[in-house]
Amino acid sequence: MEREELIAKITRELTVELGEEGFQTANCPPRNTPEPKINVAADLAGLIDHTLLKPDATYNEIERLCFEAKEYGFASVCVNPAYVHLAARLLGGGPVKVCTVVGFPLGATTYKVKAEETKEAVASGATEVDMVINLGALKSGFYNLVYQEIKAVVEAASCQALTKVIIETCYLNTEEKIKACLLARYAGADFVKTSTGFGKAGATTEDVVLMRQVVGGELGVKAAGGIRDLATAEAMIEAGANRIGASASVKIMQELAARMAAGD
Amino acid sequence: MEREELIAKITRELTVELGEEGFQTANCPPRNTPEPKINVAADLAGLIDHTLLKPDATYNEIERLCFEAKEYGFASVCVNPAYVHLAARLLGGGPVKVCTVVGFPLGATTYKVKAEETKEAVASGATEVDMVINLGALKSGFYNLVYQEIKAVVEAASCQALTKVIIETCYLNTEEKIKACLLARYAGADFVKTSTGFGKAGATTEDVVLMRQVVGGELGVKAAGGIRDLATAEAMIEAGANRIGASASVKIMQELAARMAAGD
Repeated sequence: MEREELIAKITRELTVELGEEGFQTANCPPRNTPEPKINVAADLAGLIDHTLLKPDATYNEIERLCFEAKEYGFASVCVNPAYVHLAARLLGGGPVKVCTVVGFPLGATTYKVKAEETKEAVASGATEVDMVINLGALKSGFYNLVYQEIKAVVEAASCQALTKVIIETCYLNTEEKIKACLLARYAGADFVKTSTGFGKAGATTEDVVLMRQVVGGELGVKAAGGIRDLATAEAMIEAGANRIGASASVKIMQELAARMAAGD
Repeated sequence: MEREELIAKITRELTVELGEEGFQTANCPPRNTPEPKINVAADLAGLIDHTLLKPDATYNEIERLCFEAKEYGFASVCVNPAYVHLAARLLGGGPVKVCTVVGFPLGATTYKVKAEETKEAVASGATEVDMVINLGALKSGFYNLVYQEIKAVVEAASCQALTKVIIETCYLNTEEKIKACLLARYAGADFVKTSTGFGKAGATTEDVVLMRQVVGGELGVKAAGGIRDLATAEAMIEAGANRIGASASVKIMQELAARMAAGD
């Protein structure tokens, strides 16, 4: 079956299963229309979520992360929930956003806890929330449950934080990837995101192309997981990503600076 | 410095830092005195938490896990929070406990969310809760914060669930391991546990020996992460563990049965 036909078929099936009501519940002002054409040299820093999610990250390391994000003008710092308060204090009022993760990285907490986690993070100063879907529910065919949990997080964010839905592509087949992206769209999320960085594989350009095809221009697409150099970041943007999650962001910016200095 | 001397020194330091009040807040009836001598042939199944925590585990796989746990007489099934309800329904009333994980596997959620997660899990039927400590806080020297979060989980479990504190040894040096075990003891937890199984390494016999030395006979010691055969399980028990977390539990029991059939 052609890709477009497959997406149309799954869209019809999910619409029947979920019913016509309740779609796009957040009703926030629109804000994620992807750039029609990204100029990497000019825009790259502003597309990067500067990320430090390793479990043993210290306060000093988070302080350094925030300092680097201000220096380079990254879109956000992406930190674990326990560090939202610190990051918000260090970045408060400035242009760098505070991004955190919910139900991370396994996605196997309950929707109530995911919603609570979102509320608390927003109250502590998070303005972007990357949630992991319940992969077991998706793989078991409980699409309504996945839809409800995304909706619960979107509602908990109550237009105060952008919501990104991590579908963790490495565990999904093509149909499941399409379903997860559609569920994110129906539930009113702002972005779909490829990976946690803790699964068995990270972002691929093929997945980014597919995800962009499913969400069109309505949602953003964030590529994350294993993006450790400029060439990979550019390939993801070329494939349709308008946000990049990376720990190697400073290295990537240094590569870009070196290229520009060389006049390429 | 001798090991015992080091433990005594860290004990004094932490006692000063935390103050004399508030230790062992749960006041539950005692229940974890380790067996003085474990007979592996007779007791092994009852020491094993039969574990399935991979993010893409399906409903069918959890059903099978519960079925196996009943068949072999394992201590518990250990499942992600989203599956507590299902496991409790399948095992309700029987001898196999429902164990779940909190702040898992990174330990980097807030203490409020860890407490909420515990409360919800207990309300859904969990009778054992394995929480991951905030490793970044421990490594940054914020011992009181780690103490407070363990205490919050112990209180949220309100004697309805056994609490196990995962210290994730692979990220800690010897002093940090001792501190984490002492904090778990002071906060009134029932067990200390080596690993999540998602870190860069799992249980070692050296860590089990150290942890048993720190908690003495007051708390249990659970070895988990990378225990895939009978010999490893036995080595952990020999080192002082009185609970084993494993996904390969059925294989381990089959090894034991084969050995007994061979008359060893």
